[in-house]
Amino acid sequence: MYQVGFDVGGTNLKVGVVHDNLEIVASRNVAFPKGETYEKVAALMAEQVVALAKDMNIPVTDFKSIGIATAGSIDASGSIIIHAHNLGFHDVPMIDEMHKHFPKIPVYLANDADAAALAELHAGAFRGKKTAVLFTLGTGVGGGIILGGKMFKGGMGHGNELGHMIVQHGGPICTCGNRGCIESLCTATWLIQQGRKVIVEYPISMIYEKAEGDMNKVTAKIVIDSAKEGDTIALDIFNTYVDSLSSAITSVVALLDPEVVALGGGVSLAGDFLFAPVREMVKQKSFFKVYHEVVPAQLGNTAGIIGAAMLARNEEGSV
Amino acid sequence: MYQVGFDVGGTNLKVGVVHDNLEIVASRNVAFPKGETYEKVAALMAEQVVALAKDMNIPVTDFKSIGIATAGSIDASGSIIIHAHNLGFHDVPMIDEMHKHFPKIPVYLANDADAAALAELHAGAFRGKKTAVLFTLGTGVGGGIILGGKMFKGGMGHGNELGHMIVQHGGPICTCGNRGCIESLCTATWLIQQGRKVIVEYPISMIYEKAEGDMNKVTAKIVIDSAKEGDTIALDIFNTYVDSLSSAITSVVALLDPEVVALGGGVSLAGDFLFAPVREMVKQKSFFKVYHEVVPAQLGNTAGIIGAAMLARNEEGSV
Repeated sequence: MYQVGFDVGGTNLKVGVVHDNLEIVASRNVAFPKGETYEKVAALMAEQVVALAKDMNIPVTDFKSIGIATAGSIDASGSIIIHAHNLGFHDVPMIDEMHKHFPKIPVYLANDADAAALAELHAGAFRGKKTAVLFTLGTGVGGGIILGGKMFKGGMGHGNELGHMIVQHGGPICTCGNRGCIESLCTATWLIQQGRKVIVEYPISMIYEKAEGDMNKVTAKIVIDSAKEGDTIALDIFNTYVDSLSSAITSVVALLDPEVVALGGGVSLAGDFLFAPVREMVKQKSFFKVYHEVVPAQLGNTAGIIGAAMLARNEEGSV
Repeated sequence: MYQVGFDVGGTNLKVGVVHDNLEIVASRNVAFPKGETYEKVAALMAEQVVALAKDMNIPVTDFKSIGIATAGSIDASGSIIIHAHNLGFHDVPMIDEMHKHFPKIPVYLANDADAAALAELHAGAFRGKKTAVLFTLGTGVGGGIILGGKMFKGGMGHGNELGHMIVQHGGPICTCGNRGCIESLCTATWLIQQGRKVIVEYPISMIYEKAEGDMNKVTAKIVIDSAKEGDTIALDIFNTYVDSLSSAITSVVALLDPEVVALGGGVSLAGDFLFAPVREMVKQKSFFKVYHEVVPAQLGNTAGIIGAAMLARNEEGSV
C-alpha cells in the first residue's frame, strides 16, 4: 500500500509516496508559493498528488491516505493550521480543503516536529521504542514526543512546545517574549548571535577569519568548525551551548524517563563533537542513576515526508 | 471489593482499606520503626493488615490487593525500593517480602507522588482526565503524572523526577548537587531559607516578629502569612517563589499540554493567595494560546492510601 506524505515548509513543498516498507518510491519538490491563498496552496498540493500517481502509472485511489506535516501549530481537532508564520497561514482548514480535491482519501495533519518523531519511530532512531523524545535544533527548537509507542499529540491535542520549556528562569529573552526558553539558548540562531558578537569584539578570532569579518556570513557551522579546530573563543561559545542543551535534555529526561532522546536539525550535524560532551553532561546532571541514551536523529530531510505518510498508521489508536 | 493501601513515610506508616467506592472504610496509623531491618518493617506492615481484617471482621483473603506507596525511588520492575533515604531503605525487595506474609494477595509498589496522582485520578482533581500533572510542594518537590488515563511510570519504569527538572540553568545548588532544579526553588524549604535570611538581615520584619527572632521557628507558613498580611519583605520572597513555580509549571505544560495541573503539599495550603498569581503567570508565560488549568490537589493526607489501593486497578493496562 502507498501513503502520501507532505512536508510543508516556508521554502519548499515536498511530497513523497511512501510504501509500506517505508521507502519513498516517488517524490516531488516545488517552491512553496508564498503569499498565495491557502486554497491555491492546496490546489498546488493536489496537483502534486495527481502528478505522482501519473509518474507511478497508478490511479490516485491507490493512495490510501494523505498526511501533511506542516510548520506551525495545529488545533486540537487536528484539522486546522492555527498559525504558521512561515507559510502565512492563520486558521487554515487544511483537511477540509484537501478533501475538496480528494473526497475519498483520508487526510491527516500534524506539526512537522511531531511528524519527524513519528518517522523516527517507524524508520529511524526510535524503532521499537515506546517512549522517546526528538529535539530538532535549527533556527528554532522543535520537539516530537513518542509515548506508549505512538506520536503524542499533547494532552489537550495542542501538540508540544518543547522549545518553550523554561530552562533558564530569568534568562535571555526568547522570540516568544518569555525568558530562558530552550529556544532562547539551544538554537543555531543562538550560535550565530554569539558568533556575530565575536566579529565585533575579537577581530583576531577564527570565527572572524572564516566569516571574512562579515557578520552576515556567520553560520552555526562556522562557530562549530572554529571550536572543532580549537579556537578558544569558539570553544567557549560551544561549551556554553552544550551546557544549556544538556540542561534542556536533563529536564525532559527527568519528566519522561525516555528510552532514548534523539537530536536532529542543523546543529546535530556537528556529530560526536556535540554528542560526546552532551552525553557526559546529561549523565552528570540527571537525577536518575541510569543513563538515558542521546543519539542522532536518523532521517534528516526525509523525516517530514515519512512522518506525514505514517500519520494514518498512528491514528490506529494513540495516547 | 476491598484493596489495602499503605502510605509509608519516614515518620508514619499509614494503612487503610479502600472500598470500590473509594471510601477508606478502616485505617491504622503507626510510627515508622526507624532503624529496623526491612524484614521487621514488612512484618509490622503485615500485622496491620491482619489487624484491619480483624477490625472489619472479615478474612484477610477479602483484601484483593495490597498497594504500597513509599518515599524514594522504585526499580523498573516495580518490585524493589532502590533508595529511600527517610526510611533507611536501599535495594529492598518489598514485594517479595510482603508475599512471604500474604502469598496469595497481589502486592504493588509505587513512589508516593505517583500514587498521589493516581489517587487524584480516581477520587480527586483528576477525575475523568487523561493527562494531568501533580506537583507536591513540600520539603522537596514531588511529581505525579497521568498519561492516557493511567499513572505514568516513566518510559523506562523509573518514574519521574519532576523535582529535578532544570528550570534555572546555572541557578542555586540543589540537594542533588545540580543547579537550578525545581526542587532548589519551589519547596517549603526554599521559603524557610529565605525567611531565615530575613531574621538575620531585617530584625524589624513581620517574619522576625512571628518567629520571635528565632531562625528555628521560621516556617513556610510564617513567610506566607507575613506576605498575606502585606509585609513587604515577605511579599518579595513570596512573589519570587510564585515566579519560579510558574516557570516550572510552564515547562511541564509546554511538554505535555495537560488538561490540568494540580498543586498539593504544604505550600499549596496558601490557597488562592498562591493560586491566583500562579495562574496569571502561567498564562503569561505559556506559549499555548489556551489556558491550562492549575487547581489545588483534593486528597491531602489520604492521597497515599487511596493511590496505593488503586495500584492494582492501574495495572489493568498502563502507558
